[in-house]
Amino acid sequence: MGKSNTKAGRKAQNQRRPAAGDDDHKVTALKLAPAELTPDMAAYFAKCEEKLGFVPNVLKAYAFDMAKLSAFVAMYNDLMLAPSGLSKLEREMIAVAVSAQNRCYYCLVAHGAAVRQLSGDPPLGELMVMNYRAARLSNRERAMLDFAAKLTAEPWLVEEEDRGRLREAGFSDRDIWDIAAVAGFFNMTNRVASATDMRPNSVYHGQAR
Amino acid sequence: MGKSNTKAGRKAQNQRRPAAGDDDHKVTALKLAPAELTPDMAAYFAKCEEKLGFVPNVLKAYAFDMAKLSAFVAMYNDLMLAPSGLSKLEREMIAVAVSAQNRCYYCLVAHGAAVRQLSGDPPLGELMVMNYRAARLSNRERAMLDFAAKLTAEPWLVEEEDRGRLREAGFSDRDIWDIAAVAGFFNMTNRVASATDMRPNSVYHGQAR
Amino acid sequence: MGKSNTKAGRKAQNQRRPAAGDDDHKVTALKLAPAELTPDMAAYFAKCEEKLGFVPNVLKAYAFDMAKLSAFVAMYNDLMLAPSGLSKLEREMIAVAVSAQNRCYYCLVAHGAAVRQLSGDPPLGELMVMNYRAARLSNRERAMLDFAAKLTAEPWLVEEEDRGRLREAGFSDRDIWDIAAVAGFFNMTNRVASATDMRPNSVYHGQAR
Amino acid sequence: MGKSNTKAGRKAQNQRRPAAGDDDHKVTALKLAPAELTPDMAAYFAKCEEKLGFVPNVLKAYAFDMAKLSAFVAMYNDLMLAPSGLSKLEREMIAVAVSAQNRCYYCLVAHGAAVRQLSGDPPLGELMVMNYRAARLSNRERAMLDFAAKLTAEPWLVEEEDRGRLREAGFSDRDIWDIAAVAGFFNMTNRVASATDMRPNSVYHGQAR
Amino acid sequence: MGKSNTKAGRKAQNQRRPAAGDDDHKVTALKLAPAELTPDMAAYFAKCEEKLGFVPNVLKAYAFDMAKLSAFVAMYNDLMLAPSGLSKLEREMIAVAVSAQNRCYYCLVAHGAAVRQLSGDPPLGELMVMNYRAARLSNRERAMLDFAAKLTAEPWLVEEEDRGRLREAGFSDRDIWDIAAVAGFFNMTNRVASATDMRPNSVYHGQAR
Amino acid sequence: MGKSNTKAGRKAQNQRRPAAGDDDHKVTALKLAPAELTPDMAAYFAKCEEKLGFVPNVLKAYAFDMAKLSAFVAMYNDLMLAPSGLSKLEREMIAVAVSAQNRCYYCLVAHGAAVRQLSGDPPLGELMVMNYRAARLSNRERAMLDFAAKLTAEPWLVEEEDRGRLREAGFSDRDIWDIAAVAGFFNMTNRVASATDMRPNSVYHGQAR
Repeated sequence: MGKSNTKAGRKAQNQRRPAAGDDDHKVTALKLAPAELTPDMAAYFAKCEEKLGFVPNVLKAYAFDMAKLSAFVAMYNDLMLAPSGLSKLEREMIAVAVSAQNRCYYCLVAHGAAVRQLSGDPPLGELMVMNYRAARLSNRERAMLDFAAKLTAEPWLVEEEDRGRLREAGFSDRDIWDIAAVAGFFNMTNRVASATDMRPNSVYHGQAR
Repeated sequence: MGKSNTKAGRKAQNQRRPAAGDDDHKVTALKLAPAELTPDMAAYFAKCEEKLGFVPNVLKAYAFDMAKLSAFVAMYNDLMLAPSGLSKLEREMIAVAVSAQNRCYYCLVAHGAAVRQLSGDPPLGELMVMNYRAARLSNRERAMLDFAAKLTAEPWLVEEEDRGRLREAGFSDRDIWDIAAVAGFFNMTNRVASATDMRPNSVYHGQAR
Repeated sequence: MGKSNTKAGRKAQNQRRPAAGDDDHKVTALKLAPAELTPDMAAYFAKCEEKLGFVPNVLKAYAFDMAKLSAFVAMYNDLMLAPSGLSKLEREMIAVAVSAQNRCYYCLVAHGAAVRQLSGDPPLGELMVMNYRAARLSNRERAMLDFAAKLTAEPWLVEEEDRGRLREAGFSDRDIWDIAAVAGFFNMTNRVASATDMRPNSVYHGQAR
Repeated sequence: MGKSNTKAGRKAQNQRRPAAGDDDHKVTALKLAPAELTPDMAAYFAKCEEKLGFVPNVLKAYAFDMAKLSAFVAMYNDLMLAPSGLSKLEREMIAVAVSAQNRCYYCLVAHGAAVRQLSGDPPLGELMVMNYRAARLSNRERAMLDFAAKLTAEPWLVEEEDRGRLREAGFSDRDIWDIAAVAGFFNMTNRVASATDMRPNSVYHGQAR
Repeated sequence: MGKSNTKAGRKAQNQRRPAAGDDDHKVTALKLAPAELTPDMAAYFAKCEEKLGFVPNVLKAYAFDMAKLSAFVAMYNDLMLAPSGLSKLEREMIAVAVSAQNRCYYCLVAHGAAVRQLSGDPPLGELMVMNYRAARLSNRERAMLDFAAKLTAEPWLVEEEDRGRLREAGFSDRDIWDIAAVAGFFNMTNRVASATDMRPNSVYHGQAR
Repeated sequence: MGKSNTKAGRKAQNQRRPAAGDDDHKVTALKLAPAELTPDMAAYFAKCEEKLGFVPNVLKAYAFDMAKLSAFVAMYNDLMLAPSGLSKLEREMIAVAVSAQNRCYYCLVAHGAAVRQLSGDPPLGELMVMNYRAARLSNRERAMLDFAAKLTAEPWLVEEEDRGRLREAGFSDRDIWDIAAVAGFFNMTNRVASATDMRPNSVYHGQAR
C-alpha cells in the first residue's frame, strides 16, 4: 500500500524486464505472409486508419487470405454494427463477458476498451473483464449476460427455460438470436486468438480510462 | 440383451410416445419469419437440393436475414470446402470432436454423417461423436483433435507448446490457422444451435451407416 | 455440404486409413486367456448367439474368470431385464445417458442400439448419446434422466430434494432404487470398459437405424 | 486450540443438537420392506453377525429383494475377498480413494475403517479419505490409486499410456482388470449409497483408531 | 467384510510398509530453521503444551519468523476464539467443510478432531470431512455451510441472494462477516499447508472418537 | 470498430444508466458500524492518506473491529512489504493472478493497479488480470505464477514435484513459503471481498495506465 508513484521510480524498478504485452511488431505466433489486399479490403483498412487511427490486429491476422478476411469482416460488421434490438454497447458487453469466461487476452483488451468508450463508464469495462456479476446492471443486461455466460461455459445446458428468462426480460426472438450469435462469434474469435497468440494493438490499453 | 428385433414389435412398444428428435416442421425454437432469398442464396439453396436432396436446416435457420445467411455461408464454405492443408474429412473430424465436447445435437448429427460419408467408415463417425480418444487415429489426426479439444474446453491454456506439438505432427503454420479456425467456427455454431434449439434434418440419421 | 455420396467414392477416399473402430479381433487391451465356460455360462452364450446372433463383447471380456462372469451376468440381467416399475426402454435410456456423461464408447454403441431398437425411434438413440436434454421427453423420462445424470456427475450433491422430484414425477421408492441401481451399474461398466479399452461388436453400428 | 477436553464438558455443549450421523434406525431414505431371506442369505447374515458383530447396512439396504442382494454379495465377495494380485488392503485403499472422489459418506466410513484395520495404520485410513496424494505410498500403491482416481473422475481420458504406467509399476494385465473392477464397483456403490442416503453402521466410527 | 480384528494380526499385515501419515519428525517439506521465540510466542507455546499437551504443528511451521507467527496467531485466535455470533463449534464446522472442499490433510485432521471434541458427536466430525450435505443439520448450520462451500469453490458466483439466504437463516451482518472470514481464513491455511506438505500432529487421530 | 470517441458523445450515450462500479459511498454490502480507531490504526490510516491519497476500502471494511483490522494489517504488511526473496512486484503479480482465478473484482482492481505502478508496464497489469499465461514472463516469474495458480485452483494436487519446479527456477525454501503465503492470503481476501461485495476505491481505475 505504499508504492512509489513517480514515473522515474517505476521506470527504474522496471529495468530488469521488457514490457510484457506490448510487442506490436508481431500480430500472431504464426508466420503467414500477408496477401495483397483486394480493393474492398484496402478501402476497409483505410477507413479503419481514418476512424480509429489504426488497423486492428485481428484484421492483419486474417490478411494472409482475402476470402477469410472478407468473410470475417462481413460477419463481424453485421453482428456488431448492423441494426439490432441490442445496442452496440450491449453487444460489446456480451463480447467482453464471453471473452472473460474464455480468458482471451486479445478480445478482452480490444472489446474492454469498446465498453469503456461506448458506456463512458470506465469501471464498467473493468467489471465486464473481471466479473460481470459484480456490476450494477439492469435486469435486461443481467439476463442477457447470464444467458451468454451459460451458453459459453455449458452450452449443452441451455434450454427453453433460458430463452424464457430472456423473453421475460423483454427480449424478442430476434434479440435472442442476436445474443446467441454475438456470444457464439466471440466463442469463435476467442479461440482463434488463443490458438494463434494474437496480440492486441497497444493503443487500446489507454483508451477511455 | 434379448430385445425384440422385429419392426412390428418395436412399433408396438413405441406407441406410447412420439418420435423424440424428428420434428422437422420446426427448425429452431425461435419464431423468425423467413426473408426473401437473394438470387445468390436462392441459387445456393437450389444447389443444396440438387446435390444433397435437401436444404440443411442451419441454412433455413439463418434465412430470416440475408446478410447473416450470406456471411454464414461464405465463412462456412471457405472453412470447410476451400483448398487447405487439411482434408475435408479432417475438417469434419474437428467439427464433430468439437461438437462432442459441447454436446451439440444439431452439429453432431449433421457432421457425424459427414464423417461417416467422407471416410466410408461408419464407426469413425460414431467415435468422433462418442470419444475421439477411443479411435485408432494416425499421430497427425490425434494431434489435430487434441489441439481442437483443448482449444474448445480450455482455450486459455493453449500456448506455444501446443502449437509445437502440431508442428511436430507435420502441420504448417497455415494448417494450424485452419485447425484453429475450424475448431473456432464450430464453437460458434454449436452455441447458436444450442441457444436456439436448432434441429437437424432427419435424413442425416440414416446416412452412410 | 457437397459430399460424394457414392459407395465407390467413399471407398476411394478411405484408402489411406484402416477402419477406425472396427477391430473385433480384440475385445480389450488386456491379454487375459479365456477360461473354460461353465455349463451355465455356455448355455447363456448359446442363448445370446441364438437370440442376438452374437455374443456381446463385454461377456467375452469377463470370460477369463467364471466367477466374475457369472456375477456380472446375474447383476446385469436382474437390473436390465427383471420386472421393474421402469420399462426396459427406460432402463436403456438411463444406460445411455450415463454412458454419455462418461463418454464410454463401448456402452454408447451397445446401448445406443438398444434404445433405437426398443423405442423404434432411431433419433432417440442418437439424442441419448449426444445430449438427452435436447430430446422431446415426458416429464417422467426427463426427471429420471436428470436424476441419473446428476448422480453420475456429482453424486455428492444428491439429496432428499432430488428424490422428491422423482416422487413428484410418479416414481415409487422401489423405482428410485432401480434408477439409482441402473445408473450406478453403468457408472461401473463405463469404467471397466474405459480402463480396458473394450471394443463393441461392430454389428451394433447398423442396428435399427 | 484451547478446547474443553472433558467428556462431561463435551456432552454439555452438545445438548443443543442431536447426533449428526448416528441414526441406525433407518438404513436408507427409501421405504422398502425387507423380503424374507433365502437360506443362503440368512446364512450369510449370520456369518456377518458372528465375524463382524453386525450386519453391514448395505446388505440390509439390498435385502428388499433377494435376487439383488445375492448378485451384490456375489460380486462384492469376488472382488474384495477372492484371490487376486492385489492384496485386500490394496483393494480397500482403492475403495476409499474412489469414494473420496465421490464424497460418499457410507463407503468412506465403512471402508475407511477397513483400511485402518487391515493396515494397522489408522492415519492411512484418514489419508485415503482426505487426500491419498498426501500419503507416503510405494510407487506401486501410488500408480494404482492414480489410475483409480483418474478412472473415477475422467474415465474418458484413460488410455494405453495409463495402462502402461500400471505395467511399469509391476502390475499384470489381470491386476489391471482387478484395479478397474474394484474402482468401477465403488463408482457403482457410491452412487447407490448417495442416491438413497444410505447410512453406515455407527460401530465403524470407533474401529481401529 | 471379514477382516482380522486382532491387534497382532494387523501389526503382522502391516510389516511390509511404514506408517503412512505419521512422520512427526518433520513438520513441512521446507527446510526453514526455527527462529528464537519472542517472549510472547514462547508463552503462547507453553500455554499450548499446558492446555493441549502439544504445540500444533502449524505453529512450528510458522516459527521460522516471529512476525509471521505472531500475525498468524493473532488472526487465528481472533477468528476462532473471540466472541462472535457463531459458536466455536460452528466456526470449526466451517473450517472442516472448507478444508474438505480443498482436500487439505492437515486441516481436516486437526479441525476434524476439534469438531468431534466440541460437539461430543464423533460422526459429526466425520461428516464434515466426508460430505457435510449428508449430515443432519439445522437450517442455520446448513445455510452457513452452503455459503462457505460456495464461497470456497466458486467465490465469483456469491451474490446478494446468497447473503439473503444467510439472513433468512437468522444470521446478522456481523455473522455474515464472520462466516466469510473463517471460510476465507481456511482457504488460506489449506493452501499454505498443501503447498508445504504440512503434517498434523499424530495425536489428533485418536482424539474424541 | 467505429465508435464515437468524443467525451461528450460518450456522456450522451451513457445517460440511460448510472455508473456501474463506482459507488464509493458504500464499501461492502454489510451494514457494520465503524469502531473507533485505535491510535495505531488511526496513525496507519493517516499514513495511507498521506502516501496514497486515500484509505483503501478494504481497511474501511475491516474497521468495524479493531482486533480484526490490526490482525489483517499486520499480516498484509508482513506479506507484501517486508523483506523477502520475492520483489514487491512479484508479490503483486501473484496477488493478481490468484484474484483472476477467483474473479475477485476488488482485488483485481486494487492490485492490478499495483502491478501497473510497480512494473511501469501497464499491459503487464492487464495480462495478470486477463490471463497471465499470455504474458512474456521470465522462467522464474512463470514458475511462480504456475505454482500460485495451481495452488489456487486445485490445492490438493500440489506435491513435491511442484515444489521441485520452483527450486529449479531458483527459488529457495523460504521463497516457496512466501509464494504459498501470498497466494494463500489472496485466496482469503478474494473470498472476504466476494462474500461482502467489497467495492474498490474508484481512484485505482485510472492509475498508471
